[in-house]
Amino acid sequence: NRPLVLVAGPCVIENEAATLRHAERLMSICNGVGIPLIFKASYDKANRTSVTAFRGPGMDEGLRILAKVKESLGVPVLSDIHSIEQVEPAADVLDVLQIPAFLCRQTDLLVAAAKTGKVVNVKKGQFLAPWDMKNVVGKIRSCENENIILTERGASFGYNNLVVDMRSFPIMRSTGFPVIFDATHSVQLPGGEGTSSGGQREYVEFLSRAAVAAGVDGVFMEVHEDPERALCDGPNSVRLDDLPALLNRLKAIDTIVKQA
Amino acid sequence: NRPLVLVAGPCVIENEAATLRHAERLMSICNGVGIPLIFKASYDKANRTSVTAFRGPGMDEGLRILAKVKESLGVPVLSDIHSIEQVEPAADVLDVLQIPAFLCRQTDLLVAAAKTGKVVNVKKGQFLAPWDMKNVVGKIRSCENENIILTERGASFGYNNLVVDMRSFPIMRSTGFPVIFDATHSVQLPGGEGTSSGGQREYVEFLSRAAVAAGVDGVFMEVHEDPERALCDGPNSVRLDDLPALLNRLKAIDTIVKQA
Amino acid sequence: NRPLVLVAGPCVIENEAATLRHAERLMSICNGVGIPLIFKASYDKANRTSVTAFRGPGMDEGLRILAKVKESLGVPVLSDIHSIEQVEPAADVLDVLQIPAFLCRQTDLLVAAAKTGKVVNVKKGQFLAPWDMKNVVGKIRSCENENIILTERGASFGYNNLVVDMRSFPIMRSTGFPVIFDATHSVQLPGGEGTSSGGQREYVEFLSRAAVAAGVDGVFMEVHEDPERALCDGPNSVRLDDLPALLNRLKAIDTIVKQA
Amino acid sequence: NRPLVLVAGPCVIENEAATLRHAERLMSICNGVGIPLIFKASYDKANRTSVTAFRGPGMDEGLRILAKVKESLGVPVLSDIHSIEQVEPAADVLDVLQIPAFLCRQTDLLVAAAKTGKVVNVKKGQFLAPWDMKNVVGKIRSCENENIILTERGASFGYNNLVVDMRSFPIMRSTGFPVIFDATHSVQLPGGEGTSSGGQREYVEFLSRAAVAAGVDGVFMEVHEDPERALCDGPNSVRLDDLPALLNRLKAIDTIVKQA
Repeated sequence: NRPLVLVAGPCVIENEAATLRHAERLMSICNGVGIPLIFKASYDKANRTSVTAFRGPGMDEGLRILAKVKESLGVPVLSDIHSIEQVEPAADVLDVLQIPAFLCRQTDLLVAAAKTGKVVNVKKGQFLAPWDMKNVVGKIRSCENENIILTERGASFGYNNLVVDMRSFPIMRSTGFPVIFDATHSVQLPGGEGTSSGGQREYVEFLSRAAVAAGVDGVFMEVHEDPERALCDGPNSVRLDDLPALLNRLKAIDTIVKQA
Repeated sequence: NRPLVLVAGPCVIENEAATLRHAERLMSICNGVGIPLIFKASYDKANRTSVTAFRGPGMDEGLRILAKVKESLGVPVLSDIHSIEQVEPAADVLDVLQIPAFLCRQTDLLVAAAKTGKVVNVKKGQFLAPWDMKNVVGKIRSCENENIILTERGASFGYNNLVVDMRSFPIMRSTGFPVIFDATHSVQLPGGEGTSSGGQREYVEFLSRAAVAAGVDGVFMEVHEDPERALCDGPNSVRLDDLPALLNRLKAIDTIVKQA
Repeated sequence: NRPLVLVAGPCVIENEAATLRHAERLMSICNGVGIPLIFKASYDKANRTSVTAFRGPGMDEGLRILAKVKESLGVPVLSDIHSIEQVEPAADVLDVLQIPAFLCRQTDLLVAAAKTGKVVNVKKGQFLAPWDMKNVVGKIRSCENENIILTERGASFGYNNLVVDMRSFPIMRSTGFPVIFDATHSVQLPGGEGTSSGGQREYVEFLSRAAVAAGVDGVFMEVHEDPERALCDGPNSVRLDDLPALLNRLKAIDTIVKQA
Repeated sequence: NRPLVLVAGPCVIENEAATLRHAERLMSICNGVGIPLIFKASYDKANRTSVTAFRGPGMDEGLRILAKVKESLGVPVLSDIHSIEQVEPAADVLDVLQIPAFLCRQTDLLVAAAKTGKVVNVKKGQFLAPWDMKNVVGKIRSCENENIILTERGASFGYNNLVVDMRSFPIMRSTGFPVIFDATHSVQLPGGEGTSSGGQREYVEFLSRAAVAAGVDGVFMEVHEDPERALCDGPNSVRLDDLPALLNRLKAIDTIVKQA
């Protein structure tokens, strides 16, 4: 019965100033609502739909900025890792190592992340049944690491569409590890705009309320001060101005569910 | 901002005494929680998986029993209609005519039901996108009937499985008509036991909490005093003893969402 | 190792002259290729997307025209039946009673059709696993009717899309009854154009070649002399002029498969 | 109108002797049927369901064995690459670099493979629409490499199941590059046996006949002399003894389709 956690930040590290500005506003919002924050931003978007899309500042510069966020604000930081080479430098800075959904079955990456002893957050692949996450958990536990988080971000539902099966929350929680709902990637329309993914920001509120009511340990959201100008995933990012009201509702729902 | 409604009852009318007994207990539970009840029971299960399965008492006897429930308890009653011939006798007794999911595109049945002026509740077919319910609504409205309810009961997701896409609630509500979540049929595993459908009663609570948090006007549940002995849909029916606690949680979540 | 059969005709009976003209051309084409023909046309499209769409001449006039086709050309005729009342008059004229996909689990309709002793062709629902057709077969056989055909017409795959799972042919054939591939409904995009279903005529050839190679007993196609002017399902209907070349390829593939 | 190609071999390199024995038998079978062979075997199964499953001999030993196969039999060889570090050593030996389905959107891996100038075979992710492979092609072509093959291996269809959408062949071929059907991975039941993937070898023949009839440039099959004893993917591997008859049928179907 821990409090609901928020994992949030801009999709990609656009630059140092913008990243710090977003982190500060998020801290302030979360303090106001009374929800613990884990700050999230990616240093490299390794699987953009198009080869010409913006990918971020790269690992070295990105980790430098995330270390600064962590140091100056005292907030835990989370980012994606994509290869074994990234694990060690990332673990020097990050509090949570996140395994992207497409890579959730890559044994070597899971094992390398697990061996750092850091918290490992694995996004469930769009192609994976929720009960099959127990095998993913097994790969991490085989390294004596019990700091595991599992994240739901939608399952393939025909072409260019995802669906969130809310049965996945109790199923994944039955592993004994906390489960997070990624509210903004779950409303992506993968590849849905031809050379980029579309998104349906308008459903983030409905789905995140539903997930919290079903029962999760945290919510993950990509946010932006101005989503129309975001360099990545703008169509599904939540506007920072809309966040406080949404978090207040989520917290109230969480309170009821935890009384149950 | 009407109060959340419950549509509930045993899957099929097993006999007069059992039907009255279930209706009385449901009335008492709903009065206790403060949720309006619409009593539901089917007089004929027209599409059981197997030809030898129990189908109910038939229309005449079934409507007689439902009339008795309505008269003695003062509760509105709802049942399925399967053919044009059933519309008129059913409309003499029922407050809500329900169109089964498989029949949701049968124009003549929709039109015949609409012409009675009664409330028509259409279950969205497992094969239908939520935005396509606007065409179903159009068929009913073409008869000058604006008493329409739309019900979500899951979408086909591979074989022998359904998934509830919670985006369907705001999408269907955008028609302007109330939307109900059928929590017990949504956890069916169609045909999943070879000669009958399986069910996952254990997910009813999670999914109904999620649906109410996403925002619906009512919840539909098949209930039974002893689901293991139910003559139809036992594996997904909610045990009456478990209902009050569940309804209290749903009502609390609904209150928060309606404050939003 | 019976020869491959073609079930074909316009989606709907537009009028007597057009129906006869289509039937004559189909007979001539099938004779040329050496493929037996069953002529198909619907007298009533009972589940059009929109309430204002053209539905056909109705049962009486439609059956009169089909009787004329049968008498003047000596070709067996097939049409859809939608309610128990239609079964008897339809069985007086038709050689094959077809149960639409949405109605494939309606026990009373299956039983009424079965009791006529006529051939009953059941389209597999878009929501049904192929192995669950054994229960449909059981409903017909319970009436001592062994004249059964099963038809594949695609399975729900996300929203507004169908997919043909070619495993369904051997699975349904394992019932012991012939299996037909409905090549034109399988390329429908249900509801895909807002107030009507879209279609992808360009894939009919690929899918029908694939189905015949996988192994089927017949192919079902809606055809039209001028699909752009068809009153129903034009987007997925095959142009009559394109049919002979396609049938020749299907027959050649069928020959190889039957040698196996 | 090139001849149909076979890409085949055991799922994983079990040891040198077994690999050479399989390659020799495949060469002999393909020479008999008149189908060009590309020999396939993996040196590392990087994403087995369970952490304890057999993974292969590793890259160095695996590439040594594949070099020996190539040298002694004069057959082109193909294997999977999983990280950028593997690209260069793999390209020294392999004729075709294969990108696994889960990695088909990893830009850096695609670019690194493309820059070798070798043929790059990309398996379409189970989560990707066929038209989205044009973005994958764009990533490779951005490196001035036009030696591209695209492979279909099934799309996610609910949980623990895949479906082959045969429309994907003409769609992917419209990129201008050859398309291969992976007949044995397409019949996998991912994770379907709890701690390993199940498979339905009995459908390989039906689906591969269908794919060739729909129109493909090659067929990919994992084969084994004794699938029950295979160290990987036995449930969906084709028995070598069954291969000649199957290939003869595929070649005959291909001949008809290419005459079209």
